[in-house]
Parts: sequence; C-alpha cells; structure tokens
Amino acid sequence: MSQSRTSPEIDRLISLLAKMPGLGPRSARRAALDLIKKRDQLMRPLSEALRAAADNIKTCTTCGNIDAQNPCYICAAPNRDKTVICVVQDVGDLWAMERAAAFRGQYHVLGGTLSALDGIRPEDLNIASLIDRARGEGISEIILAMNATVDGQTTAHYITDQLEGTEVNISRLAHGVPVGGELDYLDDGTISAALKSRRPF
Amino acid sequence: MSQSRTSPEIDRLISLLAKMPGLGPRSARRAALDLIKKRDQLMRPLSEALRAAADNIKTCTTCGNIDAQNPCYICAAPNRDKTVICVVQDVGDLWAMERAAAFRGQYHVLGGTLSALDGIRPEDLNIASLIDRARGEGISEIILAMNATVDGQTTAHYITDQLEGTEVNISRLAHGVPVGGELDYLDDGTISAALKSRRPF
Repeated sequence: MSQSRTSPEIDRLISLLAKMPGLGPRSARRAALDLIKKRDQLMRPLSEALRAAADNIKTCTTCGNIDAQNPCYICAAPNRDKTVICVVQDVGDLWAMERAAAFRGQYHVLGGTLSALDGIRPEDLNIASLIDRARGEGISEIILAMNATVDGQTTAHYITDQLEGTEVNISRLAHGVPVGGELDYLDDGTISAALKSRRPF
Repeated sequence: MSQSRTSPEIDRLISLLAKMPGLGPRSARRAALDLIKKRDQLMRPLSEALRAAADNIKTCTTCGNIDAQNPCYICAAPNRDKTVICVVQDVGDLWAMERAAAFRGQYHVLGGTLSALDGIRPEDLNIASLIDRARGEGISEIILAMNATVDGQTTAHYITDQLEGTEVNISRLAHGVPVGGELDYLDDGTISAALKSRRPF
C-alpha cells in the first residue's frame, strides 16, 4: 500500500480520501486520479464546498439537526406543526423522513442509540433535551422513529419510560411489509409483525 | 433524491461528493454527514489537501506522470535506468507498477487506449511523444504494459507498428496464472496463454 514514491500532495490526498466512509485505499487512489483529471470541474469546487460546509454548518441547539442557521430551517419554519416531535437516531434519518415528505412537524435527533456493547449511555445522547421539550408547552405527540433494530427499540423503550407521567401521546412507526416488498423475500419477524398489525381492508 | 430542503451548503457538498467515482447519492449523503461529524479531523484537512493538489500537481511533459514537479520524480531520478521505457495506459497503472517495486526504468503514460467504439484515435493519446522518445538517444527497450484487454492489446500492436525500423527492443508483460491464483477460477484464455508460454521447471 506504500504511496511513499508519489508526491506528498497526492499521498496526503489519497490517505484522507481513504478515511471517507465507502472509500478504501484502492478506491481512494482511483478517486484522487479522477479528481486530478477534473481539477476545475470537481476538485476545486469540492475543496470549496468542504470549506464552506466546515465553516457554516451548525448543529441546531433545539433539535440536533445540522444547518447553516441555528435554530435550523425546520425549527424556524412558521408553517410546520409545533405540537408533534419525531425522534430519530441521526441526521441521515431526518433527511430520509424529509425525502418521504410525509411529516410536517418538528424533529429531535438523538445522535445515536443506547448500546451496552458500545458503552453508549442515556447521557451520551440528546435524551434529556427531548424530555425537556416533551414536558414543555404544547407538545401533543412524540413519534419514535428509531431503526427497527435491538438498540433502536431499546432506546425507544427507555424514552417511553422517561416520558411516563407526562400528557404526551407516544407512538412509533408501523412495522410491516415494505411498499413494493414481496413476502417470499421478507424475514419471519417482519411477516409476523405485519400479520399482528393487520388492518381491515 | 431531492435535497432541496437541507441547507445549500450541504446540498452542494452532497452533489459534488456524488460525482466522485465509487460514491452514489446515498453514499455521498453518508459521507457528507461523516465529514461534518469529523469537521476538524477530516473535513478541513481534506479541503486543504484538495486545494494543495489542485494548485501543485502538474503533468510531467516527458512521461505524462503527475507530480508536484516537472519533470516528475521518476524522470528526474538520477539512479533509475534511462534506457528502458515502460508504457502504461494511465497514472494508476504507473502507481501499480511502482508498488510492485520490480521496475527501475522510465515510464510513458499514454492517457488511455485506442478505441474505435469511444472514438479514441492515436492523436488523442501520448503516442507521438513516445515514438519521439523511442527514436531518441540511448533507449534500448520499450516494455508495453497495457491491460490485457482488446483495446489495450490493439494499442500495443499499433505502437509496435509505429516503432518498426527502430533499433529498440519491444517486449510486453507475460500472460499467465496470477501469483496465488487457482486454475479452477481462471478463464480459458489465461490458461491457454499460461500453457503456451510454459517455462522449464
């Protein structure tokens, strides 16, 4: 893997590219060559975009979303429902919810899930601030939109426990057959969840 | 795929990352989030490394390699054999040869292969400069290290034709069983090539 014979500029670029998720040493070399070929169309704009994002992107102190403004564009939007908070693990999940364009309320980004294995405790996540928001004025519903994994569901249970005694309704995303999904390709857990939650036709 | 609801800085970063080879829209989103999390460890250094490479990397006018200096570190090295030129398709192939550390001569980077389908003609590649170098003083051997593809071999044949009448020896890389390779997994062409070029044991 030694790159020691190429120039230090290329070495450094490759070793940084290789740290990006989805790129290993080989694809980082390929990306570096491609970038050098597209110096003005891609390499300089990307350098600028990285710098601009590093300088301007902030974490919203209300919900944990990232944006160039704080509070973020969702917390600041006057036309979104202020009474419902959708709790997600990460900003990527918030983006996925927004792409689905099916939710017009507020978000709360936990920054991960509880995990005994990885030593992630409640105080490592934005759970206290969620409880504060939920206890505040005018919140009627908390939607727990964690991943359907063991850690995600553990976190959902923990949050439900913490919210006990408040007036807030707590819901979670439905489990079931994915739209477009074929039964033959689904795991047993999904099929039994879909059966248990069957709806009148 | 719409990112229109995130901030323009993040939108732009994701759309540029998605143009890198090996990253699509989904992995670009994941990479952008990861970069924002590692703002000072990865995002700013990468922006700097891209700018430094864009500013400093030149193409060597002798061999077509890329480096911060022209002539490149290989053409400029006093202790490398000046009489042998290894012809490769791309800078990535030159890097692969150098990683193998089995060649101590000069290189010539063609910048691609002839291709009737893609309309790539001899004048689109660095072939004329190769012929000039080969006809110059003191070159004893040209090693054609093109990929073992149809286009690679067509290019090798074309160069061989162009070099007719010179004193230079022309060779190509051996075809055969890759080191560590198992016969059962090799294609027929490789096995017959390895058999044809069998060597006394």
